[in-house]
Amino acid sequence: MKIDVLSLFPEMFEGVLHSSIMKKAQENSAVSFDVTDFRDFATNKHRKVDDYPYGGGAGMVLKPEPLFAAVEAVSAEAEKPPRVILMCPQGERFTQKKAEELATEEHLVFVCGHYEGYDERIRQHLVTDELSLGDFVLTGGEIAAMAIIDSVVRLLPEVLGNADSSVLDSFSTGLLEHPQYTRPANFNGLEVPPVLLSGNHAEIEKWREEQALLRTFERRKDLLKEAPLTAHQRQLLDQLENEKK
Amino acid sequence: MKIDVLSLFPEMFEGVLHSSIMKKAQENSAVSFDVTDFRDFATNKHRKVDDYPYGGGAGMVLKPEPLFAAVEAVSAEAEKPPRVILMCPQGERFTQKKAEELATEEHLVFVCGHYEGYDERIRQHLVTDELSLGDFVLTGGEIAAMAIIDSVVRLLPEVLGNADSSVLDSFSTGLLEHPQYTRPANFNGLEVPPVLLSGNHAEIEKWREEQALLRTFERRKDLLKEAPLTAHQRQLLDQLENEKK
Repeated sequence: MKIDVLSLFPEMFEGVLHSSIMKKAQENSAVSFDVTDFRDFATNKHRKVDDYPYGGGAGMVLKPEPLFAAVEAVSAEAEKPPRVILMCPQGERFTQKKAEELATEEHLVFVCGHYEGYDERIRQHLVTDELSLGDFVLTGGEIAAMAIIDSVVRLLPEVLGNADSSVLDSFSTGLLEHPQYTRPANFNGLEVPPVLLSGNHAEIEKWREEQALLRTFERRKDLLKEAPLTAHQRQLLDQLENEKK
Repeated sequence: MKIDVLSLFPEMFEGVLHSSIMKKAQENSAVSFDVTDFRDFATNKHRKVDDYPYGGGAGMVLKPEPLFAAVEAVSAEAEKPPRVILMCPQGERFTQKKAEELATEEHLVFVCGHYEGYDERIRQHLVTDELSLGDFVLTGGEIAAMAIIDSVVRLLPEVLGNADSSVLDSFSTGLLEHPQYTRPANFNGLEVPPVLLSGNHAEIEKWREEQALLRTFERRKDLLKEAPLTAHQRQLLDQLENEKK
């Protein structure tokens, strides 16, 4: 996979794209990254990429020319057009399902504005997807793009060393994960539940199923509608719902 | 505000914490950042911070000792205990309202795990908040922490130069923002709506109100329940809802 990022702050990406699994993914040739400062595509002598909004009002608006030219440049050699992703709070909410979909693409281009709005012609005629992380405001699209890049790249084949780590992730069972404990068994008086030290695997499995259900019931009831439950979990859920009445 | 980040990959933060408004916020003394590698608080000779889960299973679990010790160290001089924020997909969904709440704090500590799970005693006895950006899986808490830090720091007084930029952000009116256009009026045949070039401010305002409502209706109907609408917008909404029937 090839990933291009268009940003006015390319230095923001250095730490993230060269650490941990992003670094490994590049070393494995699973992905290659390029971060391009789209100010290089400004056509005026002051290298301005934004301008006042037509009709007046506060704030600046990113001009269409530099971004159209930058996308054209980074996709010049591609056989098929890339997915061009605009990060903005008005976009579709990013989810794991979207990450899985993007992980099947060959070329992703992330367009990251900063402070400014986007000229509407960028939204309508240049980008293929507008994505948002959620209902909160960031200074720019850069950190949101990093989040999406991380969640997509880790799904590429051969990126995660241990196949288990991906399978056991949150959301893959449809429930939140059960609590985990490790040594010491007693930390400043805080003890690990005895069942986990019992060596009785059937009991441990039962406890984990219960805890996963309980945690999901407490924190994310919305997930219970879709989650496949074991008979034991179903029974426990009925009990919890009856108690509430 | 003081912000501490506890991470096994401190180098990931370099680009983000030293660019753009984060840089400016530090120069203004609005915020100071410290990123601490909590491996420095490991108590064993191999500097291990994780261990196998009690009860078996795949994956590793972050041990309690290094994180308890690291939080104690970074809050040693504080008068009141900090907010200790754990980034995890099981946490409460982060929103602009939470950003506003965190922006009133004096000291935030972000705990960023990477790959591993957290020993449950960390969740129950060390952290004050568990936050999630949404239903997708990241390799670690680092990028999620950057997103939250950015959204909080930009709300601190004196961080954003132009007071307008914060007020006019998405969500502040309760509706998605209307489309924006800037020069050129004709870009490769793509034209700016004539009303924006008309100089008629009443008509421009009316067009923007309509467009904000239309966009919100198309993309985020859920926001319409709470949004304060003008009489004109209310009328338009009734019309849109009737058309659908």
